[in-house]
Amino acid sequence: MSSDKRFKHLISIDELSKDDILYILKRAEEFEDIAKGKKVSKILDGKILANLFFEPSTRTRMSFETAMKRLGGDVINMTDTEISSVAKGETLADTVKVVSNYVDVIVLRHPLEGAAKFASENSSVPVINAGDGAGQHPTQTLLDLYTIQKESRLDGAKIALMGDLKYSRTVHSLIKALTLFKTKIFLVSPEILRLPEEFIEELEGDFESAELEDVIDQIDVLYVTRIQKERFPDEEEYRKVAGSYIITPQTLENAKDTLIIMHPLPRVNEIDTSVDATRFARYFEQSFYGVPIRMAILSELLL
Amino acid sequence: MSSDKRFKHLISIDELSKDDILYILKRAEEFEDIAKGKKVSKILDGKILANLFFEPSTRTRMSFETAMKRLGGDVINMTDTEISSVAKGETLADTVKVVSNYVDVIVLRHPLEGAAKFASENSSVPVINAGDGAGQHPTQTLLDLYTIQKESRLDGAKIALMGDLKYSRTVHSLIKALTLFKTKIFLVSPEILRLPEEFIEELEGDFESAELEDVIDQIDVLYVTRIQKERFPDEEEYRKVAGSYIITPQTLENAKDTLIIMHPLPRVNEIDTSVDATRFARYFEQSFYGVPIRMAILSELLL
Amino acid sequence: MSSDKRFKHLISIDELSKDDILYILKRAEEFEDIAKGKKVSKILDGKILANLFFEPSTRTRMSFETAMKRLGGDVINMTDTEISSVAKGETLADTVKVVSNYVDVIVLRHPLEGAAKFASENSSVPVINAGDGAGQHPTQTLLDLYTIQKESRLDGAKIALMGDLKYSRTVHSLIKALTLFKTKIFLVSPEILRLPEEFIEELEGDFESAELEDVIDQIDVLYVTRIQKERFPDEEEYRKVAGSYIITPQTLENAKDTLIIMHPLPRVNEIDTSVDATRFARYFEQSFYGVPIRMAILSELLL
Repeated sequence: MSSDKRFKHLISIDELSKDDILYILKRAEEFEDIAKGKKVSKILDGKILANLFFEPSTRTRMSFETAMKRLGGDVINMTDTEISSVAKGETLADTVKVVSNYVDVIVLRHPLEGAAKFASENSSVPVINAGDGAGQHPTQTLLDLYTIQKESRLDGAKIALMGDLKYSRTVHSLIKALTLFKTKIFLVSPEILRLPEEFIEELEGDFESAELEDVIDQIDVLYVTRIQKERFPDEEEYRKVAGSYIITPQTLENAKDTLIIMHPLPRVNEIDTSVDATRFARYFEQSFYGVPIRMAILSELLL
Repeated sequence: MSSDKRFKHLISIDELSKDDILYILKRAEEFEDIAKGKKVSKILDGKILANLFFEPSTRTRMSFETAMKRLGGDVINMTDTEISSVAKGETLADTVKVVSNYVDVIVLRHPLEGAAKFASENSSVPVINAGDGAGQHPTQTLLDLYTIQKESRLDGAKIALMGDLKYSRTVHSLIKALTLFKTKIFLVSPEILRLPEEFIEELEGDFESAELEDVIDQIDVLYVTRIQKERFPDEEEYRKVAGSYIITPQTLENAKDTLIIMHPLPRVNEIDTSVDATRFARYFEQSFYGVPIRMAILSELLL
Repeated sequence: MSSDKRFKHLISIDELSKDDILYILKRAEEFEDIAKGKKVSKILDGKILANLFFEPSTRTRMSFETAMKRLGGDVINMTDTEISSVAKGETLADTVKVVSNYVDVIVLRHPLEGAAKFASENSSVPVINAGDGAGQHPTQTLLDLYTIQKESRLDGAKIALMGDLKYSRTVHSLIKALTLFKTKIFLVSPEILRLPEEFIEELEGDFESAELEDVIDQIDVLYVTRIQKERFPDEEEYRKVAGSYIITPQTLENAKDTLIIMHPLPRVNEIDTSVDATRFARYFEQSFYGVPIRMAILSELLL
């Protein structure tokens, strides 16, 4: 390993400077042809990644697996079904100590906030946080930023975040990162799922609550998240609210030509499938961009 | 990809002409030494296959995985245990759209008929049907044909199909394909599990219902399938019928020297293990032939 | 394959001579840099290993997978969750016959003693026993011996085995192997979990029951195993006994400077985590040594 790495582990987006982020996005761009299978790479030949998934997240696991294999590396999976039956009370510290003696990098998904940081303190190899409860999921944030940069623009963009702004980890991390880029952020959510006040107060940024119809003609990016039934006291209330946060071609009638719509996926019905064929949809591209972003991270940590 | 591919996806055996089938069987022959591990190949180096198995079929999954890896490619698995816990209501269309952005080919196993066709319409990469409910499982049919060609002969063969001819997807697909080769087909089944009349009527072929003992001295191929308890109204009836459809060395006393016995596996007790050591048994070879057949398909779709 | 292999399968440690064992340990040493990822090897390029795990043992599976992949080979997994849902009554013999036609070596984990031997009789490729019930787990024994040789010394060592000496498969296999090396063995266990008399009688060796505090100042190796609650008639009794078989820094006050502590892992609380930082702890190194040992076995069987 070279000694001038920008980071030794990837636990939280907060650890990255704006310069770090731009560096990763630039590297991701260079990996796109390999991610698409147009070019073959072997730069991670001989390297092994361990996916330690203490809760399921098939999409994220497959994306890391693709990134590693397309760079010539290999992957060993340890999924939650096995873990539950095997653990026999072993601590996360012991599991990480053992596995980090086998492989070159660990990707950890865990239901508890702080698990990734704790794992990195017990690991002899780099740890990448692939989501730890209400905590961080930094590669998701990076791929979101990459999508905005590629498909729209980052600096000075007008971005509407819509849906569950209270509990969504994805939204919280993205907002923090966006404040580095002088964006204007519109918050579009039901009363019960508004972004917490404390959250806004501790950030310097240009935030504004809004109804989607009032800003649709000026925004560059519409980022939609799922509204979960479990967040509502009763189902009647949920159905009423959720129904008015569904994107259809009609919702987009006054949108700018260059608007892009993003979603971390999986979606349920927040975005009607009839939107997929419009010029606005970018959520499948966004999902794909997870591969070059993870390639950029892996190559930074392993080379 | 070259533009002169014989097929873009492999959804149903019905889409293949006799010439296509013979071409695949010939290609499979060329892959046999690689399938056996006698020669190392890297022709699919850098390519990734995704096994999307919405129901378990370990045998089929392992066979595709072996084929891909022996050709230098790699594999990402998404199995039913994960799917059930992760899906969160995501549609098959969305799953396929996302995964086809990661990999070079998708192998789909799904409990619902028509799922493979639907997936191919939503995929940006080739889809191979590895069984969709009562629908098709074309690589099984191709390996069956390959076994007959290799171990006996296809053109003009006399073939007895025995067991569940009513519900068995394997049997239905094989029959359709066999009619391309001027075979004589004997149908050997309990009354309750006979081949549906409509099925015979729509095919041009030489079919005849028979008792096994009456044709055992003239057939070239005996294809045995499992009789499932669930098909019978009561267990007593099942036991009586199933018991008389078990192959033993005695059953084979009057068989031609060159008879071969096939079975799609897994077997329960339809073929007594004492038959394994006879010169007739070919079901383990048949299972192995799934590897070169899948190599032929993968190389056709990916090169 | 060369015809002068020392063994065709690896079913039991009892099949190996002292010379065989020393040969494997020497080979493992040669593989260490590759196991650590410091050197890249492709000696098993094109070879495929199948992990057939009829019960979970994630640690063992991952160790074999690492060993195979670090030597340039590839791996296909068939885990217990799939097996339970797919088996449909198929016999182990049939499963092994089919899978051995796909791959180059089978690693079998099975809950029933004798399963590995039986599998080897039905396999067309080498079978490695990765634990069969109360039976054998020879690669565990080999990595234990390798740890003692590397971190202490084998010939003439004084070794205390502590914990469950009655049921522990790990301990029984290790004891048998240690008698080849003129070791002095102290047996440290609760009355209810003593090493069976018959076991000692059939072995030639220097055995002695002891309390740990009486021998701690003279032993070279302290091998700790887990005491399982299920072995005790009531939980009160278990708690009393288990509590007095926990290693802490205090337990080790009079230990020789060169003492090493081993444990097959996972541990629950038999070794307090405060021991991890002492100069005695070697259980994580021991776990790592499973990789070069398995490399040595795989290269012996496959080259």
